[in-house]
Amino acid sequence: MLRILPREAKFFELFVDMAKNIERASQQLVELLVRYDNVAERVRSIKDIEHLGDQMTHDLFTRLNKTFITPIDREDIHELASTLDDVLDMIDAVSSRMLIYKIEKPTEDAVRLAELIHTATHVLVEALAVLEKHDHIIEHCIEINRLENEGDRISRIAIARLFDDHNDPIYIIKWKEIYEVLEGAIDCCEDVANVIEGVVVKNA
Amino acid sequence: MLRILPREAKFFELFVDMAKNIERASQQLVELLVRYDNVAERVRSIKDIEHLGDQMTHDLFTRLNKTFITPIDREDIHELASTLDDVLDMIDAVSSRMLIYKIEKPTEDAVRLAELIHTATHVLVEALAVLEKHDHIIEHCIEINRLENEGDRISRIAIARLFDDHNDPIYIIKWKEIYEVLEGAIDCCEDVANVIEGVVVKNA
Amino acid sequence: MLRILPREAKFFELFVDMAKNIERASQQLVELLVRYDNVAERVRSIKDIEHLGDQMTHDLFTRLNKTFITPIDREDIHELASTLDDVLDMIDAVSSRMLIYKIEKPTEDAVRLAELIHTATHVLVEALAVLEKHDHIIEHCIEINRLENEGDRISRIAIARLFDDHNDPIYIIKWKEIYEVLEGAIDCCEDVANVIEGVVVKNA
Repeated sequence: MLRILPREAKFFELFVDMAKNIERASQQLVELLVRYDNVAERVRSIKDIEHLGDQMTHDLFTRLNKTFITPIDREDIHELASTLDDVLDMIDAVSSRMLIYKIEKPTEDAVRLAELIHTATHVLVEALAVLEKHDHIIEHCIEINRLENEGDRISRIAIARLFDDHNDPIYIIKWKEIYEVLEGAIDCCEDVANVIEGVVVKNA
Repeated sequence: MLRILPREAKFFELFVDMAKNIERASQQLVELLVRYDNVAERVRSIKDIEHLGDQMTHDLFTRLNKTFITPIDREDIHELASTLDDVLDMIDAVSSRMLIYKIEKPTEDAVRLAELIHTATHVLVEALAVLEKHDHIIEHCIEINRLENEGDRISRIAIARLFDDHNDPIYIIKWKEIYEVLEGAIDCCEDVANVIEGVVVKNA
Repeated sequence: MLRILPREAKFFELFVDMAKNIERASQQLVELLVRYDNVAERVRSIKDIEHLGDQMTHDLFTRLNKTFITPIDREDIHELASTLDDVLDMIDAVSSRMLIYKIEKPTEDAVRLAELIHTATHVLVEALAVLEKHDHIIEHCIEINRLENEGDRISRIAIARLFDDHNDPIYIIKWKEIYEVLEGAIDCCEDVANVIEGVVVKNA
């Protein structure tokens, strides 16, 4: 349905690049939590990816301001870039909390949630790769909704376990927040999926 | 102002059905907190309503993808369905926390907030029932804003009371969060009202 | 790029008035935290400004419903008013927590964050003042993004310090929340900037 002029196909490529950058951050988050060595260095590396993401968002807006005809509505391009940026911010927020809270050792629940984020960001790459053609894109969005439900379930169990197994309120405060931010990252992936769904619905 | 073809009037009916489903969940939340017996069963019943809501949202999107002309903008239909879904998620989040946090006895402040959610969801049903005709719809939105202010006030008092009356930080962590999610549910009702207001403004 | 009929220029003036009202609230928040005398009275004064903001938002919506041609899309006017209102709500939320949590003495980090909010709201006034002409408006938005990054950095340091320097979990719960709401107020300023950016992009 979307008629694209060749020179504008670039927008879709930019979105795929942005999603791949986010996927890379989520992969590094999994590695950070699994290995948990050289923590400061790994946290800094994720922060660098986040800065790169900011740069990509900025470039996209600059291009948008110079482009007369866009393949999808300008405000949807803007919304898509903003929600993608939110995912990356949340991944960085989890990562940085390892240092801020001086976490000694990540929990298995945190690793599972990070893996779920990694999966969700991979599905985002796939969804954005077919945005131009709408090909089975709704299936990808449904998959992200499913992952979000799964993330919700895991984080609820993790938080229940936290209160069952620990008495130290400060430990609970820190980990409750980390689980919430991990789940928040998946929620942000769902927000991106909702924007994609909206774009598809509008151009159906 | 909205000219509706007969076969499309269905969208408005679907929204009313969705809001009625949410109102039912909020009513069960009040009953859960007031009676506080068979807790696991009551929590599961609210979860079932939430699943039904997900199904209704999915059906609406499927219908949307098959419909050529819609009575209001496609993206507003999408936004309305998403924000309605958020209300239901929040009600389920409160309910499930009773189990996760092993709450022994709900507070009176929690009951008052749940009753306020119930009232707000009832006003949403009324607002959506007149969305097609715009009849006094803004009054309903203003009423929801008023309820949100009231919820804000009650939850602030409840949280102040929490810190005044309790020394156990773990009890405080749990209840502070429950009050915040209860207030969050009313905030989500206000988000729906804002979308409705936006639709009315756009079609004025 | 935006062609404005004279009688409609009023919308832009209303937005500037709303932003100035918010800037006033943020200035009073800085004074509250710096001086920290007559706390109840100062908190009430900020609450009064918030009520005034609600009134201004309501007036704008009333005007919007009576206006046939608007200088920018009706839904963007609505979105801009809503996000501006959120900034004011957050400032009031910080202020009221001083009483609810019976805070004895604000921290220096809180003062720094409040000053950052004040700066951000001042930039919002400037941005809205040139919205009609788009003149260097993107620079203002970039400046707000920069302030948001700075706020993020300061609140992370403040929260790290909180866990390093304090053992009392109840003190930590209160201050962690205050820092988050302070940072949330700057996030809301960024949301306004994003809406402005979206409007500019759409009308480019």
